[in-house]
Amino acid sequence: MLIIDMMSEWRFPSSEPLLRHAARIAPAIEALRARCDAVGVPVVYVNDNHGRWRSDLRKVVQDACAQEGPGGDIARSLAPRERDYFVLKPKHSGFYATPLELLLRHLHVGQLILTGVSTEHCVSMTATDACMRDFKVWCPADGVASHTPALRDRTLTQLQESLCICTDPSPSLRLPELV
Amino acid sequence: MLIIDMMSEWRFPSSEPLLRHAARIAPAIEALRARCDAVGVPVVYVNDNHGRWRSDLRKVVQDACAQEGPGGDIARSLAPRERDYFVLKPKHSGFYATPLELLLRHLHVGQLILTGVSTEHCVSMTATDACMRDFKVWCPADGVASHTPALRDRTLTQLQESLCICTDPSPSLRLPELV
Amino acid sequence: MLIIDMMSEWRFPSSEPLLRHAARIAPAIEALRARCDAVGVPVVYVNDNHGRWRSDLRKVVQDACAQEGPGGDIARSLAPRERDYFVLKPKHSGFYATPLELLLRHLHVGQLILTGVSTEHCVSMTATDACMRDFKVWCPADGVASHTPALRDRTLTQLQESLCICTDPSPSLRLPELV
Amino acid sequence: MLIIDMMSEWRFPSSEPLLRHAARIAPAIEALRARCDAVGVPVVYVNDNHGRWRSDLRKVVQDACAQEGPGGDIARSLAPRERDYFVLKPKHSGFYATPLELLLRHLHVGQLILTGVSTEHCVSMTATDACMRDFKVWCPADGVASHTPALRDRTLTQLQESLCICTDPSPSLRLPELV
Repeated sequence: MLIIDMMSEWRFPSSEPLLRHAARIAPAIEALRARCDAVGVPVVYVNDNHGRWRSDLRKVVQDACAQEGPGGDIARSLAPRERDYFVLKPKHSGFYATPLELLLRHLHVGQLILTGVSTEHCVSMTATDACMRDFKVWCPADGVASHTPALRDRTLTQLQESLCICTDPSPSLRLPELV
Repeated sequence: MLIIDMMSEWRFPSSEPLLRHAARIAPAIEALRARCDAVGVPVVYVNDNHGRWRSDLRKVVQDACAQEGPGGDIARSLAPRERDYFVLKPKHSGFYATPLELLLRHLHVGQLILTGVSTEHCVSMTATDACMRDFKVWCPADGVASHTPALRDRTLTQLQESLCICTDPSPSLRLPELV
Repeated sequence: MLIIDMMSEWRFPSSEPLLRHAARIAPAIEALRARCDAVGVPVVYVNDNHGRWRSDLRKVVQDACAQEGPGGDIARSLAPRERDYFVLKPKHSGFYATPLELLLRHLHVGQLILTGVSTEHCVSMTATDACMRDFKVWCPADGVASHTPALRDRTLTQLQESLCICTDPSPSLRLPELV
Repeated sequence: MLIIDMMSEWRFPSSEPLLRHAARIAPAIEALRARCDAVGVPVVYVNDNHGRWRSDLRKVVQDACAQEGPGGDIARSLAPRERDYFVLKPKHSGFYATPLELLLRHLHVGQLILTGVSTEHCVSMTATDACMRDFKVWCPADGVASHTPALRDRTLTQLQESLCICTDPSPSLRLPELV
């Protein structure tokens, strides 16, 4: 299970609507993470390095948790635990210029659940890169967010039709099949 | 300036001779780092993730500094500062499955000084990958170490003859030319 | 200017509607190629290797030209000339596991015109990979085709809104600005 | 089995000594290729594109075979057959900016025999990249050549000691173990 760009200070241009929608999906991601924990599916945080290039996950997480408002709420509820993996990405796709693919091969993972923001950028570009590398991808509609619901829905339709990515909501995912 | 794999707990098989030689080159690296600071050459730590896949530089540095003996001395004298960059690599070469190349392009760097351990593995493989990407590479003989001086010297001869990499000792490097 | 997957025997499942729409965009691509020739914009064919892994562009082009019907018409009208570049790609994106990025850097290219098929797969995935590598991308609506016009239009809207890719039709492209 | 850079017009600076040594190893490579054929080990040509960027293996092979002298003899004796694979590489390592790794995964290959020229550049850099990707590598001493035997021997010693690459001569390779 990948959690994309949910640890953030939301300091980029017009981040407000995205943050609002991200806050709404956080509970579904938290619930899905608990289900993954229960059956032993590893959780990998794939997060922007926000131009810092310092491989410093703790700083990213601390700064995200320290802020006021919904961004801090998200970060505190979803903060990575000791056992979770963490990959800092310099660009949109989690696979570009990162060790993500090596980590997934190391974990003997063939299937991915993608959650986080934003659906049309980092989630979608990580999803297509995953398909191109022959991973099977799920992208639960209630686990991803965009600036507008319409943009999210169009992106999900696109992923579904062009790459056969399943976008059924997270409660319908049958996790034991993944292990 | 790259500092390769000097932050370590030295817990791999037969690390003892390598650690001993690493301790001897630490002062030269520290002096070179001070000269880089003085002229504004950025310093990038390129360090093994030691199978942790957690992008957690602070844990790597803390564990290295906390140990007794020469490994701790090295780590404390060379620990990265706030302004330094840090790239965790999953394999030997600093360029493989990491954002190193993107970072160097972002810093508009065309020339690299390589220091650290071990000369024949991570330093040499990072050096060849750098040459293949058209960076100009210096590898000062007093800034790199191997299990034996003979192995270091043969590797340096190899880099010099096959890739035209300059291996003159660090005092002879003219840093202002790099900026 | 990239021409994607137009040299083909169209032997994949349900290729018929895609071929029909590809035939309709071939004249616009041919006209755009002539304009690129006139101002010295290099033309790069980015084409599937169709599972052959033999880097054999001539066989791909010969087989495509030798067939009856619209696939042969397309191939004969758009066959690469001596001066054109040719990159065989093993997967959807022209940038994945190919020398395309190195070639474009070698040509000192910073802007790309993407044409060919299919809009939602290879064109779109090459476009997003190009944006991630900081190329400026044009994707003229009359130079790309999908199985249905609706799918093409939705993909173009997606590229436009999420990646700011210009999709204006080819006659409106001002080529001299590219050189 | 990889055959590296043996299809060439040998038109680079000071190619003469390398060509002379390459001519001497051609019979051993031919014999090894026949043994690979006999047990079904796939043969992959990994060859420089010589700045052409046109994925045109036939032109590379034709030009190599057409020349007078030892370069033509080598090319004619070792020219790729219909069933062989062919990867054009833009730089030294066969893995950099090419589909080689994908091809090897596609062929379910975990072990590589490296032959060709030059030992200290393309062979050595392909060998280290292969080791970093967890392939097991053989580099038979009688199947690789350098500008001087001394340079070849030092490179082989280096590969052997630093990467545990077997450099026993080709007659001692037990091919059935590879399949």
